[in-house]
Amino acid sequence: MTASTPQRQLHLNINALHSGFVPSAWRLPRSDVRAFVDVQHYVRLARIAEAGKFDAIFLADNASIADQIHFRPITALEPTLLLASVAAATTHIGLVATVSTSYNEPYNIARRFATLDHLSGGRAGWNVVTTADAGSARNFGRSAPIEHGQRYARADEFTRIVKALWDSWEDDAFIGDKNTGRFVDTGKLAPVAHHGTFFDVHGPLNLPRPPQGHPVLFQAGGSADGRELAALHAEAVFSASQSFEEALAYKREINARAEALGRGPHAVKILPGLTTIIGATEAQARQRRDELVELIPWDYSLNRLAGTLGIPVERLRLDAPLPEKIALPADGNHTFFRATLALARRERLTVRELIRELAGGGGHRVIVGTPDQIADDIEHWFRHGAADGFNLMPDALPDGLQDFVDGVVPILQRRGIFRTEYEGTTLRQHLGLQRPAGRTVTRAAA
Amino acid sequence: MTASTPQRQLHLNINALHSGFVPSAWRLPRSDVRAFVDVQHYVRLARIAEAGKFDAIFLADNASIADQIHFRPITALEPTLLLASVAAATTHIGLVATVSTSYNEPYNIARRFATLDHLSGGRAGWNVVTTADAGSARNFGRSAPIEHGQRYARADEFTRIVKALWDSWEDDAFIGDKNTGRFVDTGKLAPVAHHGTFFDVHGPLNLPRPPQGHPVLFQAGGSADGRELAALHAEAVFSASQSFEEALAYKREINARAEALGRGPHAVKILPGLTTIIGATEAQARQRRDELVELIPWDYSLNRLAGTLGIPVERLRLDAPLPEKIALPADGNHTFFRATLALARRERLTVRELIRELAGGGGHRVIVGTPDQIADDIEHWFRHGAADGFNLMPDALPDGLQDFVDGVVPILQRRGIFRTEYEGTTLRQHLGLQRPAGRTVTRAAA
Repeated sequence: MTASTPQRQLHLNINALHSGFVPSAWRLPRSDVRAFVDVQHYVRLARIAEAGKFDAIFLADNASIADQIHFRPITALEPTLLLASVAAATTHIGLVATVSTSYNEPYNIARRFATLDHLSGGRAGWNVVTTADAGSARNFGRSAPIEHGQRYARADEFTRIVKALWDSWEDDAFIGDKNTGRFVDTGKLAPVAHHGTFFDVHGPLNLPRPPQGHPVLFQAGGSADGRELAALHAEAVFSASQSFEEALAYKREINARAEALGRGPHAVKILPGLTTIIGATEAQARQRRDELVELIPWDYSLNRLAGTLGIPVERLRLDAPLPEKIALPADGNHTFFRATLALARRERLTVRELIRELAGGGGHRVIVGTPDQIADDIEHWFRHGAADGFNLMPDALPDGLQDFVDGVVPILQRRGIFRTEYEGTTLRQHLGLQRPAGRTVTRAAA
Repeated sequence: MTASTPQRQLHLNINALHSGFVPSAWRLPRSDVRAFVDVQHYVRLARIAEAGKFDAIFLADNASIADQIHFRPITALEPTLLLASVAAATTHIGLVATVSTSYNEPYNIARRFATLDHLSGGRAGWNVVTTADAGSARNFGRSAPIEHGQRYARADEFTRIVKALWDSWEDDAFIGDKNTGRFVDTGKLAPVAHHGTFFDVHGPLNLPRPPQGHPVLFQAGGSADGRELAALHAEAVFSASQSFEEALAYKREINARAEALGRGPHAVKILPGLTTIIGATEAQARQRRDELVELIPWDYSLNRLAGTLGIPVERLRLDAPLPEKIALPADGNHTFFRATLALARRERLTVRELIRELAGGGGHRVIVGTPDQIADDIEHWFRHGAADGFNLMPDALPDGLQDFVDGVVPILQRRGIFRTEYEGTTLRQHLGLQRPAGRTVTRAAA
């Protein structure tokens, strides 16, 4: 490689999960227990990540109380509003919000993300999800979740409508000529006129095309339906892989599926989740991990693990391996199910050991080590094709993020695989993604 | 009245209608034609209004292209996101967003306003509307709008659920005790368990009770159903009255309806819409009005007026009075219909004169005059019981607002009817409204 060939660059998102990924993070002496409802906490995270030249801040979401809140914080503040507020306090970092296709209307969601893109100058991303949990279903008039296949069929149709709405204005439809009094060239607007299985949406959208053309589409496809949805629409995927081999296979599969759909050979960026527990020495990092795990009640962790695996908690024994037969749950998160089960089987872990390896968490990989060890791991996955970057979920926030930015980012920068300055201003530019061309709908204005 | 009895205070909201209320406002030399998609425009308006000690910034909304955009801007950016961004740039001013009950889900809306209230420190307000236009219906799977009575029945049920969700956490349910590891007292959460005509919603909400208990509920009830909805739920109403007598009657009626429902004698603040066109002399103000009206194509104004009245545009002749028989449209905005028709009949105006009196607008009252004349008018309505304040919609923005804050506000302050400093930090405190007590649901935690 010569100096004139720019090296492929790593992408880093911060998953701004309230007090941090480890369920006991809120109990650390320096943690703010009110972080989960404090916009200033999220502003702080975004600013630290922006100083570290991260691609984006990412917010998960749920439409019900989806964890055991007697013990730990949940996703509470609605992500698109929270990021609209964060946008006002930042200048470059991308803003990626999770919004479900299961209990929303495409017109409203097209509009919210177009708005976020306009008000952030082209920094919006949408993590397209379906909602599988029974608690959410009961908040939207249903006694049970929408069936898995239907959920994904709805998500596909929903996403197609949203894209069409974003394209319902040509880029130059807005004129604003004070002299002639022409405000919009209505000949450059067209209805969507969608009549589908789940939705009828006429359009056009009631605001101009977003600065990015389309806000960047993220997805997290674990199941077969989810992988196909990712191949159809995702520009980047938040994956969950516990091993290099799983990650490599997943990345190849998604891109092969996308290529089979005519999207080119490297259409989808794969960003596995990665929890970091950082210490000046490996021993110190391990001690931090063990102290955090000790602060989590075992009952909490057992119930959470049982939930991930879709089995009654009574089937788990702390000092025994997982039960031999565990069926893929019809509903629930297949990504976390597979990753958790694979880790336990491969390493032959007892339930107690599994919970410790997961740092009490729910399926994402945890690295415990020094900044150099973490940088080595990241570089290995990145250089050998298992990841295009990572969705970072530090043990505790903001400290775990600050430690990563201070300790790991400079190493990655010295190794030439992570930017030292932003080269663009939009999330698409950070990710090296093309701006979608949009439709040409020009006709004689009415 | 003695010095120790605080005088009743006027309330002022700024209706931040993109470039301003007059349809040609965007064509003025100082106007920014991109204001309707520029968050900085709204931040500027909020800051000017906050410097003028206004109660709130208010944003209207539509879920379709609801005006003739070949000529003028529309409500484009989604209001709750826009206000989340404005919240980050302001400290005191209330933030009131319009969101429709017709094409949303109560769980999502309860969450969005609770989020806005949390991230603004208790400054959120919700303008509860129903959506009557055919264009919006077609964006949400319907060939026609929901029938009028059904729309309001749905709005009532929707609002009751949202309030119940806000109350589904007791104020002190959140604990966050690092020592004991207790995060939330789940015994202080209760499901909503609502099973109604339009919605089944289980709850509880997935975030703590908003700082204000309930974000302030606004409404704009024109029809009989709308007035009843206002009496049931509204804490403040954006009304449209062209004359003092209409305003007085409307204010008495709403408060009588609210009292009949057990809400006390002065439960609902009435804030008529008020467009101001300010000049150093009355002649200069009239000249400004005429110049603005001349910049509006007559075709635009005729079509808009026909839309407000629910008649074909062919029935209007510029230099004739309105047609004699105009029926109340089954759908459409009854408030604007009534106010417009009343003005034309009372003043015996030709269509051309009516359009000039309305400054090309759609039903709200327009005052054209000096700061003293405008202050006199405001004081008259306020002191004699026709209004608790006004929803100000200046001719052009930000200039018309700046002129009001510089010219009219100091007069109102000198007369002792408008605050010179904020006394509280929440919108409820600005409006002198009690914080709702919430439910007591305490039981043994699970």
